[in-house]
Amino acid sequence: MKYGIAIFPSKEIQDAANSYRKRYDPKYALIPPHITLKEAFEVDEEKIKELVTELKHIANETKPFKININKVSTFAPVTNTIYFKIEPIQELTDLFDKMHSGKFPKESEHAFVPHITIAQKLSDGEYSDVRGSLQMKKVKFEDYVDRFQLLYQLENGSWTVYESFVFGKEHV
Amino acid sequence: MKYGIAIFPSKEIQDAANSYRKRYDPKYALIPPHITLKEAFEVDEEKIKELVTELKHIANETKPFKININKVSTFAPVTNTIYFKIEPIQELTDLFDKMHSGKFPKESEHAFVPHITIAQKLSDGEYSDVRGSLQMKKVKFEDYVDRFQLLYQLENGSWTVYESFVFGKEHV
Repeated sequence: MKYGIAIFPSKEIQDAANSYRKRYDPKYALIPPHITLKEAFEVDEEKIKELVTELKHIANETKPFKININKVSTFAPVTNTIYFKIEPIQELTDLFDKMHSGKFPKESEHAFVPHITIAQKLSDGEYSDVRGSLQMKKVKFEDYVDRFQLLYQLENGSWTVYESFVFGKEHV
Repeated sequence: MKYGIAIFPSKEIQDAANSYRKRYDPKYALIPPHITLKEAFEVDEEKIKELVTELKHIANETKPFKININKVSTFAPVTNTIYFKIEPIQELTDLFDKMHSGKFPKESEHAFVPHITIAQKLSDGEYSDVRGSLQMKKVKFEDYVDRFQLLYQLENGSWTVYESFVFGKEHV
């Protein structure tokens, strides 16, 4: 099965992201607003059990931390994805690194830029319009991260949570 | 916030349910296919912490169990919801009872009929068509339940998983 690992931000941030995603993100209905820690990877049932144990260790090694969102940014010209930028913070990078080393499949197509996508797969015209209007908006959110989630993908492309991992609280 | 408690069945069962939900369930995009253990209930942040501890105790008291789906059924004439019927099993009833007593909000509008909705809010004509064609189909699934999930609802009506509770594995 295909798995992925993500952080769901607070309801406030999810609601704000969805107000844009509803119109501008074709993946709106497939997963709630999230920070991807590990992109879709294929592993079998035996292997996932092993990785769940690893994820519990990682969660237990991690202390809850704050994240800040201060602006809207974009991956243009590589893709026309627009996102809430998460201010860089070591704790997120550490999580990403641990999930791309050791027993985990290591390949990552991109450098790690923590973000919450709010628009993607736009036409050039749409992109210019949306980017222009979003850059005028003030976005400012603070959130407290104390967990991440392991999800698997269904045939329709949507994601179901398999397990949550709460920092410092996992029974290994 | 509004919370709910549900079991997500195996990917195989979710994919089968979604093949109908896509056409016949207006809530298709709001939550993956699920067995509701506790309908939406409103509690504040302090109270949910207390309930999370309760849910950990409940999970630790529960042993993994099998469920069987052998037919499609309906709540007609009360509502025209069509669902995969879960064969009654004491373990599910025990979970439901524990989540509707003690510290939990107790009200439940309905008797507990464990099910996975595959169609709802149909017009009378659609209902007759869909029911007729679904009753001809053989459905037979077995699944193994070893966890449930606490979710909260966003402003758009969709649900995000807050925490998973794995039977016998929770650190209280």
